[in-house]
Amino acid sequence: MRNVAIAGAGMTRFGKYTDRGLKELTREAVTAALDSAGVPKEALEVAIVGNAAAGLITGQECIRAQVVLRSMGIDKIPMVNTENACASSSTAFQLAWLYVASGMYDVALALGVEKMYSEDKARTMAAFSAGVDVEGLRELMQQLKPPSERAAGVPSGAGTSRSLFMDIYAAGARTHMAKYGTTKEQYARIAVKNHNNGSLNPHAQYRERYSLEEILASPMVSEPLTRLMCAPIGDGAAAAVLVSEEKIAQYTTKPVWVRGTALASGSDHRDVDGGISARAAQKAFVMAGMTMRDVDVLEVHDASAAAELSLYEELGLCAEGKGGRLIDEGVTEIGGRLPVNTSGGLLAKGHPVGATGVAQIYEIFLQLRGEAGDRQVAGARVGMTENGGGMMRGEAAATTVHILSL
Amino acid sequence: MRNVAIAGAGMTRFGKYTDRGLKELTREAVTAALDSAGVPKEALEVAIVGNAAAGLITGQECIRAQVVLRSMGIDKIPMVNTENACASSSTAFQLAWLYVASGMYDVALALGVEKMYSEDKARTMAAFSAGVDVEGLRELMQQLKPPSERAAGVPSGAGTSRSLFMDIYAAGARTHMAKYGTTKEQYARIAVKNHNNGSLNPHAQYRERYSLEEILASPMVSEPLTRLMCAPIGDGAAAAVLVSEEKIAQYTTKPVWVRGTALASGSDHRDVDGGISARAAQKAFVMAGMTMRDVDVLEVHDASAAAELSLYEELGLCAEGKGGRLIDEGVTEIGGRLPVNTSGGLLAKGHPVGATGVAQIYEIFLQLRGEAGDRQVAGARVGMTENGGGMMRGEAAATTVHILSL
Repeated sequence: MRNVAIAGAGMTRFGKYTDRGLKELTREAVTAALDSAGVPKEALEVAIVGNAAAGLITGQECIRAQVVLRSMGIDKIPMVNTENACASSSTAFQLAWLYVASGMYDVALALGVEKMYSEDKARTMAAFSAGVDVEGLRELMQQLKPPSERAAGVPSGAGTSRSLFMDIYAAGARTHMAKYGTTKEQYARIAVKNHNNGSLNPHAQYRERYSLEEILASPMVSEPLTRLMCAPIGDGAAAAVLVSEEKIAQYTTKPVWVRGTALASGSDHRDVDGGISARAAQKAFVMAGMTMRDVDVLEVHDASAAAELSLYEELGLCAEGKGGRLIDEGVTEIGGRLPVNTSGGLLAKGHPVGATGVAQIYEIFLQLRGEAGDRQVAGARVGMTENGGGMMRGEAAATTVHILSL
Repeated sequence: MRNVAIAGAGMTRFGKYTDRGLKELTREAVTAALDSAGVPKEALEVAIVGNAAAGLITGQECIRAQVVLRSMGIDKIPMVNTENACASSSTAFQLAWLYVASGMYDVALALGVEKMYSEDKARTMAAFSAGVDVEGLRELMQQLKPPSERAAGVPSGAGTSRSLFMDIYAAGARTHMAKYGTTKEQYARIAVKNHNNGSLNPHAQYRERYSLEEILASPMVSEPLTRLMCAPIGDGAAAAVLVSEEKIAQYTTKPVWVRGTALASGSDHRDVDGGISARAAQKAFVMAGMTMRDVDVLEVHDASAAAELSLYEELGLCAEGKGGRLIDEGVTEIGGRLPVNTSGGLLAKGHPVGATGVAQIYEIFLQLRGEAGDRQVAGARVGMTENGGGMMRGEAAATTVHILSL
């Protein structure tokens, strides 16, 4: 396989766009990516589009790529629609890489686009449940209630799918707290960090900074997770243009290379096989010929603060049970040894699910090119993204890891 | 890129399965494909799954591959969910080929699985509309009504999406009849041929033979297309196991090689650029180093008899306007110079949309291995599939062409 570079990347600001649909969001992100790459749209040879919820939100299934891209004059080229829940567009990114790495095409577009907001709130909630095994859903919801609610027969959260995901994360956090003494404040500190980073990112949905007390005092979603420790609902799009090593010099003198790409599916829990993210990271590092020690900046799938802490351990940033200490020591802050979620992460940048994977890659692209503005990690040369999607038996159904470098 | 072979393939019989879901259909098709290949499920390194309608039928979006494959003990490996409407699983097949051709993996599974039947008939109908640009739907339906209905203000067909697709095909047929003198009997003859072929195929949904008079006398769907000239609704699954040239000898002594693979998206009409199927075929032939003259057996996307006749011309089996004569001369019958849809095609074998692409490949796989029983094409060495999906501006949104050979 040959080397593949990201020639350019772009994204919309994430947010609630009541007046903009998938086509408008696509146009903005793809135009930004093409401009960044110096690639005219006529040079694109293949496009892969990740979207998770359009079927549930707008009824548009099956040919989402063709519909959104034709609206901006991109047509005829091969288009692949792909889904892997919250990892949909990082899966699209792997496929775009594969089309170029294989030698089949020289210029590929990877796009993630999502609208979660709908005037019909039931649709938004349905979209949130789409990433689970629907047959196993009811049983899971019962298992995940906090013991007090289970005993009292209280419905899980508001009975929404959003609270289902947060119930899963919260259950994991409670176990971690009991086993390792991790504290609610440590989870809150992750949210402080990510909201602070988001305040420095013009593409972030939420740009407010919060104190530890404010994070803890925000409404409880599922003990110990308050609202500010949970990713919001959002709309948005992110795109990247990938080019072969043979053609990259035509377009840019600042390529960011794809060194490792891995996709894994879930099944066993962490105690059995180390976890899906660890498995994906291991594969990506082998491909890149690197280890975690080489990484300067990292975006992870912080759908909740609990997820980020858990990923510190699963990805080997620290030993099992030491995630709380890692955040206390400031290691993952900008300026720390290994900054995590400099973009604000899902917590502050937002989480339009199908767009999140490529948005993570966009952040690393900026960091490695030294274009991350006020949140720049000095001297970053190697970056990594971890993007989890869906849920089966309490573990992600699909996880990607990408390793990028100058 | 390296050579890739189909080691094995399998499918369920297509039909109406009120008592079987996606998991049961998957298990049967994948087990048959693995058995055919001599590949244990533990040897699979990546799986790509095409499905178009589960989101609308069962609510299962996003992680369909993981849900259906885990149920038969296939997990942890990378899984990609892909959609391209009726071309979903042939797109999955191209991706499986790409993962192996690139050198990334040696053994890949491509699966198409679909349930169209639902106790809630509105869901089945919604699934049929999923392959169109939903925003453009209303306008299109108005344009496509036969003039008599338009004048009388009659709703298009029964107002269902199924009749929308058939209205599109019927409008094309009426134009063809007016321009070239093509007759209703010639369209009916295609249906006679495909139902006859289907009667020889144990996996076909419908195995009855019909006379020309019976085809013409079946209920009118959209003039000139009667019900027996239109593909039925169906459930089913089809799977193929792809293996690299380095590893193929471990599994089979009868590989079928993938010589060409192409995916195109629609936009301009046939009079502008030759049509999406012609474009896809041209790319696939260049890759294979072959022309249509090399092809011994061909499966095309006969969602209606009108589509098959149109494809004769678009793919260059005959000149523009001569499709009617081609069927009259028996060229595309088993025993003719170039048999088309020996499986019974979509008309008789059935059309569970996401499963159709790999089911076409299964038919060619059998034909090239000399395992097609009573419908065997003597001495077939090169086969081809054409699979169209979705609809934009009256043309397919996605079309794949695959060329296979011994």
